[in-house]
Amino acid sequence: MTQSYTLGFSCPDQPGIVHSVSSFIVDIGGNITESRQFEDRENELFFMRVEFDVKASIDVEEINQKFSLIADSYSMNWRLANSDKRERVLIMVSKYEHCLNDLLFRHRSGSLLVDIPVIVSNHRDLEEMANWYGIPFVHISHEKGKAEAENQLRKVIAENKVDLIVLARYMQILSGDFCDDFAGKIINIHHSFLPSFKGAKPYHQAHQRGVKVIGATAHYVTRELDEGPIIEQEVARVDHSNTPDQLASVGRDVEAQALARAVAWHAQHRVFLSGQRTIVFR
Amino acid sequence: MTQSYTLGFSCPDQPGIVHSVSSFIVDIGGNITESRQFEDRENELFFMRVEFDVKASIDVEEINQKFSLIADSYSMNWRLANSDKRERVLIMVSKYEHCLNDLLFRHRSGSLLVDIPVIVSNHRDLEEMANWYGIPFVHISHEKGKAEAENQLRKVIAENKVDLIVLARYMQILSGDFCDDFAGKIINIHHSFLPSFKGAKPYHQAHQRGVKVIGATAHYVTRELDEGPIIEQEVARVDHSNTPDQLASVGRDVEAQALARAVAWHAQHRVFLSGQRTIVFR
Amino acid sequence: MTQSYTLGFSCPDQPGIVHSVSSFIVDIGGNITESRQFEDRENELFFMRVEFDVKASIDVEEINQKFSLIADSYSMNWRLANSDKRERVLIMVSKYEHCLNDLLFRHRSGSLLVDIPVIVSNHRDLEEMANWYGIPFVHISHEKGKAEAENQLRKVIAENKVDLIVLARYMQILSGDFCDDFAGKIINIHHSFLPSFKGAKPYHQAHQRGVKVIGATAHYVTRELDEGPIIEQEVARVDHSNTPDQLASVGRDVEAQALARAVAWHAQHRVFLSGQRTIVFR
Amino acid sequence: MTQSYTLGFSCPDQPGIVHSVSSFIVDIGGNITESRQFEDRENELFFMRVEFDVKASIDVEEINQKFSLIADSYSMNWRLANSDKRERVLIMVSKYEHCLNDLLFRHRSGSLLVDIPVIVSNHRDLEEMANWYGIPFVHISHEKGKAEAENQLRKVIAENKVDLIVLARYMQILSGDFCDDFAGKIINIHHSFLPSFKGAKPYHQAHQRGVKVIGATAHYVTRELDEGPIIEQEVARVDHSNTPDQLASVGRDVEAQALARAVAWHAQHRVFLSGQRTIVFR
Repeated sequence: MTQSYTLGFSCPDQPGIVHSVSSFIVDIGGNITESRQFEDRENELFFMRVEFDVKASIDVEEINQKFSLIADSYSMNWRLANSDKRERVLIMVSKYEHCLNDLLFRHRSGSLLVDIPVIVSNHRDLEEMANWYGIPFVHISHEKGKAEAENQLRKVIAENKVDLIVLARYMQILSGDFCDDFAGKIINIHHSFLPSFKGAKPYHQAHQRGVKVIGATAHYVTRELDEGPIIEQEVARVDHSNTPDQLASVGRDVEAQALARAVAWHAQHRVFLSGQRTIVFR
Repeated sequence: MTQSYTLGFSCPDQPGIVHSVSSFIVDIGGNITESRQFEDRENELFFMRVEFDVKASIDVEEINQKFSLIADSYSMNWRLANSDKRERVLIMVSKYEHCLNDLLFRHRSGSLLVDIPVIVSNHRDLEEMANWYGIPFVHISHEKGKAEAENQLRKVIAENKVDLIVLARYMQILSGDFCDDFAGKIINIHHSFLPSFKGAKPYHQAHQRGVKVIGATAHYVTRELDEGPIIEQEVARVDHSNTPDQLASVGRDVEAQALARAVAWHAQHRVFLSGQRTIVFR
Repeated sequence: MTQSYTLGFSCPDQPGIVHSVSSFIVDIGGNITESRQFEDRENELFFMRVEFDVKASIDVEEINQKFSLIADSYSMNWRLANSDKRERVLIMVSKYEHCLNDLLFRHRSGSLLVDIPVIVSNHRDLEEMANWYGIPFVHISHEKGKAEAENQLRKVIAENKVDLIVLARYMQILSGDFCDDFAGKIINIHHSFLPSFKGAKPYHQAHQRGVKVIGATAHYVTRELDEGPIIEQEVARVDHSNTPDQLASVGRDVEAQALARAVAWHAQHRVFLSGQRTIVFR
Repeated sequence: MTQSYTLGFSCPDQPGIVHSVSSFIVDIGGNITESRQFEDRENELFFMRVEFDVKASIDVEEINQKFSLIADSYSMNWRLANSDKRERVLIMVSKYEHCLNDLLFRHRSGSLLVDIPVIVSNHRDLEEMANWYGIPFVHISHEKGKAEAENQLRKVIAENKVDLIVLARYMQILSGDFCDDFAGKIINIHHSFLPSFKGAKPYHQAHQRGVKVIGATAHYVTRELDEGPIIEQEVARVDHSNTPDQLASVGRDVEAQALARAVAWHAQHRVFLSGQRTIVFR
């Protein structure tokens, strides 16, 4: 019986890192099954993601302890995860259902391997869909203000041991403090090809500008609206005959695809942050 | 023996336009071979492009005269062209050669059906390429200022009976007056997916922002830099490992493709202006 | 009050067709809102689709009668439909749910404007999904043979006044007679980029051949398996690391998109048959 | 002063390979700058490509000798190359010039880092293009038969120390023996999306079948025509209005792109053979 682990880290670049990591894996009797590296020469940083199998008898604590020595010596920002352990994803929505439906369908059909313990919304419109997919639905009203709503949200996050928050066309802006507290743990889908058409009504903006290709952008959420690190973008061709509503209709497919990929890659620990940019070991 | 004509027009929308146009074509013994219409409901405008064959014995002047009555009655902005008459295209370049090479190669191999009477540049770097393709090359220095340079350019345009000016990575900004005088007759290729990354060094901007898809935009030139009506856009996938130079390398293909299509469509009278947007009957 | 109609026809090519059609529309006081033509020079055929508005007081029978005179004189194969009348679509499935879910979701969210009176399956797996979307589900067993099953199917078709049958990953082969009787009225999604990888297990075939791009093909069903006229194809990039299962996972998105577009275009009478090929006025 | 090397190998999969390779690189004072692995579970093979820098004072022979011990112990099929050493590419053409022009332009503009010592053709049509780009052109007539022509070709290959033969729309079929002798060293561009439309006139075949997407395939040449391992494929959308000639025109861009990428990847030792499939570490 073997157990599979996923190790990811970034650290200042220097010779010998891969060797130290592979030595460690050999030492614990492991076998590398997938490995990716990236040397960011501009920022002199090294990123690595490696999956390996070890005998199930070896304890995760033991592995963690052993690797922490290497991690310290290279000043790594690191994370070791049992590959079979699913990320716990909280999905936030408002009234648009296409991204939620897409994520829930992929989840149910087994192509998106995460746990979805709860769906949160500031409206009740999508409660029925959540019910049908068998996912608990929590309505958090914004009537008493953003602060109170975020307090409730923090409770739901804690109670459900949430690893990742996905804004699947959630129409409220999170507070700066909330964004900071969950940095790198909130993925949003913006319905434009960022940095084009930030803010409201991007399909109307796109129509007015007369673009010939529209897009959607999945990105980590930061204090600056629509400025967070981009994880994935998808595009589709349009033409002069498309009304803003038709752009939105074409865009729904594109949004759902970009978001689903971003969530899957994050859940598999394939996404690394490097300042305002992401490294994605697809 | 038949002769083929291309008729294009826009006018305020009202019932009976297609019927009047088809009546006219039947009256002159013509046969419609291709036809496209677009009703812009937002602006209550109607656009139409129609190709038809008539007996070669009928004179273009006669056709023009007859159609002008219809055109007047519908307040059309119109143009009738002999389909075999090639647009005369002046290409402007600086030092980058990929778009020039692409246009000249398509021209020589017969896939871009235009005449290219002259290439103008503010540098001498691409003179050799122009020579090899057998196209006259005119060097217009900017040492005596933009006004003097544009005067020379206007002379070259007049002498060569130029219909269309193509800025194939031309690195000077044309004056507002020049842009106005040749409105709808200058196509530029911008090396980004507009409206993202206007202005200088778009590939560096794209790298810094960490986008996952880059693009290029062919558009008509107006006084406002990189704000003119978009004719065509093309995109390519990139990832975190691409340096700005690699983005530029990938981008060169995308630029050449978008520009070549825009020039071909314009030359076939497939592009219509509607405010800040274009109607493209591909 | 106006009523919108969609007229589509094909006929031997000759001068004056567009004029006759536009005359007819003027005569009944109509206004053309969208129009497309295609002249198939190879086969000397002319195809046209035109949408027009007329006063609601004019009867459809009257319009039909008047147009039939023109249609006869040009030997047209034609169809006039009230643009608001929705096609009645029967969806057939087996066990795979992604295409069904995609169609039902688009239907429910209003982006696919058809009626779906009934879902038919040779299995019971997707009954629950049909129920949730509120669509009647009919199980037709193949235990008593294909002939008996098709008899039942024909009854369901008749009872539900079905205009179009969509095989959304239906895993049974229809009889030649059935294909003939519903020629041009059955759309299938094949999970490969036809004509590559006909028949069974195309993703396994694609994996074995080591292709770098996979695809899906929506086509009309004919007696010859996977040989019917192609309506739409969509593709996605893959690489050496993808197992057949992963190809299938990527492919599910591509299948759903190609099928949804084909059904929408058919329902809007945008698809015309020309021998083994289709004309699609997108 | 450092020197960069690229090491590539495949071998039966077993634990410890990455560790042994990284140990070796540490031992010679090297620093890994790029690394990719792939574990082919189906065939139980392991593939790895690693680039590393070492002090320029270390001799390539020394490195080769040291690594051969590791290579032997793992039964590797391997290759170590100085990363700066350019592959020597012989391009073969007939009369179509688009792929040749594309490769030569990329070569001259520095985006395709290979040496092109010679161009060989069975026609004289493209001699002028070769001359302009300053590449020696050798005409090998097929009048005395394929065997004699291939003898001459073998001489040109030997004299020019050719590493790779690129068939850039070369219209002769190479003999089985020639294919065997240069297995994995001949890249062909086929103007269809293989395995669709093998053999002659693929654009006519595509037109007849009515496909909605066309493609091109760059592959290694084997005895079986159009059956060799695929390196890269590219596609483009087309529609019913495209004649076979127009498909060919659209296809030319697609062919040139797929071929250029395949040649670049091969030249950077990014392509590995695994039976009928390729591993491409893009």
